[in-house]
Amino acid sequence: MVKSTEERLAAAAIELPPAVTPFGPYVAAVQTGNLLFLSGMLPTVGHEPKFLGRVGKELNVEQGCSGAYAAALNVLAVARQNLGSLDRISRVVKLGVYIATAGGRPDLVKIADAASELLRDIFGEDKISARLVFGVENLPFGVPVELEVIFEVG
Amino acid sequence: MVKSTEERLAAAAIELPPAVTPFGPYVAAVQTGNLLFLSGMLPTVGHEPKFLGRVGKELNVEQGCSGAYAAALNVLAVARQNLGSLDRISRVVKLGVYIATAGGRPDLVKIADAASELLRDIFGEDKISARLVFGVENLPFGVPVELEVIFEVG
Amino acid sequence: MVKSTEERLAAAAIELPPAVTPFGPYVAAVQTGNLLFLSGMLPTVGHEPKFLGRVGKELNVEQGCSGAYAAALNVLAVARQNLGSLDRISRVVKLGVYIATAGGRPDLVKIADAASELLRDIFGEDKISARLVFGVENLPFGVPVELEVIFEVG
Repeated sequence: MVKSTEERLAAAAIELPPAVTPFGPYVAAVQTGNLLFLSGMLPTVGHEPKFLGRVGKELNVEQGCSGAYAAALNVLAVARQNLGSLDRISRVVKLGVYIATAGGRPDLVKIADAASELLRDIFGEDKISARLVFGVENLPFGVPVELEVIFEVG
Repeated sequence: MVKSTEERLAAAAIELPPAVTPFGPYVAAVQTGNLLFLSGMLPTVGHEPKFLGRVGKELNVEQGCSGAYAAALNVLAVARQNLGSLDRISRVVKLGVYIATAGGRPDLVKIADAASELLRDIFGEDKISARLVFGVENLPFGVPVELEVIFEVG
Repeated sequence: MVKSTEERLAAAAIELPPAVTPFGPYVAAVQTGNLLFLSGMLPTVGHEPKFLGRVGKELNVEQGCSGAYAAALNVLAVARQNLGSLDRISRVVKLGVYIATAGGRPDLVKIADAASELLRDIFGEDKISARLVFGVENLPFGVPVELEVIFEVG
């Protein structure tokens, strides 16, 4: 039996946080046609950062991975709130992974993989995304990672 | 009476600058289907930067906000030139706010809000965008802020 | 006689490298509707970086231009592999040029133009893109430039 996205999420015993609300005059997601554009998702719980610092400076790569994973949970929570069910998502079109760094060369790919792997495990191999990864100078509130996601809605 | 976007712009007595022309072999905007993708908009008047420097270093947050506002005026000017009227825009889908920073932790959200608030005031609460914000190492010509916008055309 | 994209590529005697395969759990490109989103393309041959370093620090602007050109060849190779022929592309919608910099103010526009010019020469003046350019703190594997492209498929 092929599992649905929501069934895979339940089977993995992953509990999603409440969908994060905006920090200003914007919305968490906009649907246009069958594309759902999400706002930049951060490793926050509500409006509280779970991680602070730059990877390769205040934080190590493992902490960066944990930040990416936490931000990806917010991606799922916002998508479900907007669509009613993650089963409506027919494809993860784009995953942008933007990592705060500070002069070193931390393993950006490993951090991005932490988000990609969660999305692959939940949505399935046939829905994995194109991906864009780079290190930025600074992120809102001083968090280490921000995710940008575009979903295709079936 | 509900005002149209152009009526709100006129009521606010905001005069748009001439639409900025490209600095190289690209165009200011591309429409595909009902999405209008704008090139990165800078705080320039014509090809002259109105602000130079990085926020938290050569410029303060207030100057960053002014730069974001000036870039947002260019967004409106380019959109109107491409569509004939801003009233054809049915939604601001994505606003990306990319801010040149230099090691500090300036208030990125406040700077982004300066652009978001203008777009909200002109297009209305029901058309506000998803948003992506981060600090970059460097922007073209040394300006402090760049905006990326995708509009939905009705 | 108007030449097709594939004919222009052949006439320019440009030979594309093999399409680069992903470095993790993502795909090189995703098509949704008539938009083809490419993953961030780097100046690599296979999985080997052709250029390493930041522009204005370890590399000069000319090397940055060469990196942008090399990454643009990977864009073409991946697009052709996904679509069968570059002639199916009706428009270059978005070109993002993200350049690793380190405190100086190298000529970002010149580097971006190296990618834009190749795309213009191959796809033609009527298909040129909107463009977004900025300097980032760090890129995967330490390469100097990354390209993000969205194509419209006819």
